[in-house]
Amino acid sequence: YNWAASLTAEERNRGLSTISAGNTAMALGYTARLFRVPARSLLPDSVPATKLEAIKRYGMEAVLMPMDELFNFIFEARWEQEPYSFLNPWADEKMIAGSGTIGLEIFHDMPEVDTVFVPVGGGGLISGIGSALKVLKPSLRVVGVQSEACPSLQATFETGRPTWVNAQTTICDGTAVPFIVEEMYPLLRQVVDGAVLVSEEAVKSAIKRLALRNKLIVEGSGALSVAAALSTPSEERGKTVCILSGGSIDSDKLKKIIELDH
Amino acid sequence: YNWAASLTAEERNRGLSTISAGNTAMALGYTARLFRVPARSLLPDSVPATKLEAIKRYGMEAVLMPMDELFNFIFEARWEQEPYSFLNPWADEKMIAGSGTIGLEIFHDMPEVDTVFVPVGGGGLISGIGSALKVLKPSLRVVGVQSEACPSLQATFETGRPTWVNAQTTICDGTAVPFIVEEMYPLLRQVVDGAVLVSEEAVKSAIKRLALRNKLIVEGSGALSVAAALSTPSEERGKTVCILSGGSIDSDKLKKIIELDH
Repeated sequence: YNWAASLTAEERNRGLSTISAGNTAMALGYTARLFRVPARSLLPDSVPATKLEAIKRYGMEAVLMPMDELFNFIFEARWEQEPYSFLNPWADEKMIAGSGTIGLEIFHDMPEVDTVFVPVGGGGLISGIGSALKVLKPSLRVVGVQSEACPSLQATFETGRPTWVNAQTTICDGTAVPFIVEEMYPLLRQVVDGAVLVSEEAVKSAIKRLALRNKLIVEGSGALSVAAALSTPSEERGKTVCILSGGSIDSDKLKKIIELDH
Repeated sequence: YNWAASLTAEERNRGLSTISAGNTAMALGYTARLFRVPARSLLPDSVPATKLEAIKRYGMEAVLMPMDELFNFIFEARWEQEPYSFLNPWADEKMIAGSGTIGLEIFHDMPEVDTVFVPVGGGGLISGIGSALKVLKPSLRVVGVQSEACPSLQATFETGRPTWVNAQTTICDGTAVPFIVEEMYPLLRQVVDGAVLVSEEAVKSAIKRLALRNKLIVEGSGALSVAAALSTPSEERGKTVCILSGGSIDSDKLKKIIELDH
């Protein structure tokens, strides 16, 4: 929204487009409806049905393609030929600033917070949240969380440069981005204190707990933060905030998770 | 909480007790933990497992008995022999005033509201919400919602006096109260504009929709309000608020509802 609001009317009226695993497309569809302009998104053809339905409900065009084609599109910067105004879903500064308002809200509601766990896909969300929080309370820890199946943030921190990882099958479809783009790295270094990996089983347990105890339906990527908090001793993390960054999980997956024993 | 906070320390330290289908007991257990005093509740032996677990998690004593024994306990006012301070779960004025704060919140957040749908069991929740809203905005409609399986509010409004109904099996366990006690009637008349009945199927659809679209797990009784709103034309209800009065649904029931086709 913040990105779209910062465009000129002329740019916005051209239409809005992006590349997304699903949630950014949903946010852009919502935004486009508010501004009454057309929108479309490139998406991997593995996008969950529930996300695709939500995207279409916003009246947005969904262009599905295999994941490797999507990566080629990105690396060749083919969006420069796009007639719609294009949102870079990782590195756009206005979008990151928009995510920063989440950091403002956290500090407003809970200034005593010690640790914030944030799911990480491309890195935009955590960059925004961390940018705000590190100004308001430098002592606070901002921790990025990913599934063991796709540890691109940890790999990037370890090697000190953008590092491609081989993504395994994961319930965290929304954060299954096998690389952190180069222009994100300086900001991530500055505002993120560390990367934590959690197992697929821990994510499923977190989804089940959030559903049955907290009454919230959260998708795999969204539950990463809770899985990380539950696996970190409370003395170590102190007062903790977990970002639940999405709730679009297919009902058959949800059903299987509710049936789990743990 | 408001009831317990208004007791003297001596009364509170005696312990807190009530009769409940589950949710009032959970609220009382939460409150007792805040005040560090013991608590217990009489409950029907049909209480859902998830509610019983939550009650025990608060360190509260649960005394289960068949529904008809529970009714006898109430009609014979046997709580007068109770050593703990006893909360009348329907008619206590402090509890109703506590529910009134929900009305204040609604008006604060959405002064343009036209209709508020509230699930009705014993009538305490809607009495409090209605008392606040009818002062703030007399033109607003406060509508009580029950399942067709247990239409005690409608029966009471129709006959003009407390009327016992034969409760059928219902997914709305939290509001399956087959009568409205006499002392509630004057206030209900004054602050409630009408009673709406919804089918069990409509409640299940509302639970499914709340889970998959709104990402909220809501129990049968809690979803009554949404079922009522969805079956009322929007011209008729205008800007609408639905109270979701509970989220404790057993996971096997939830699973079956997520599998439904509608």
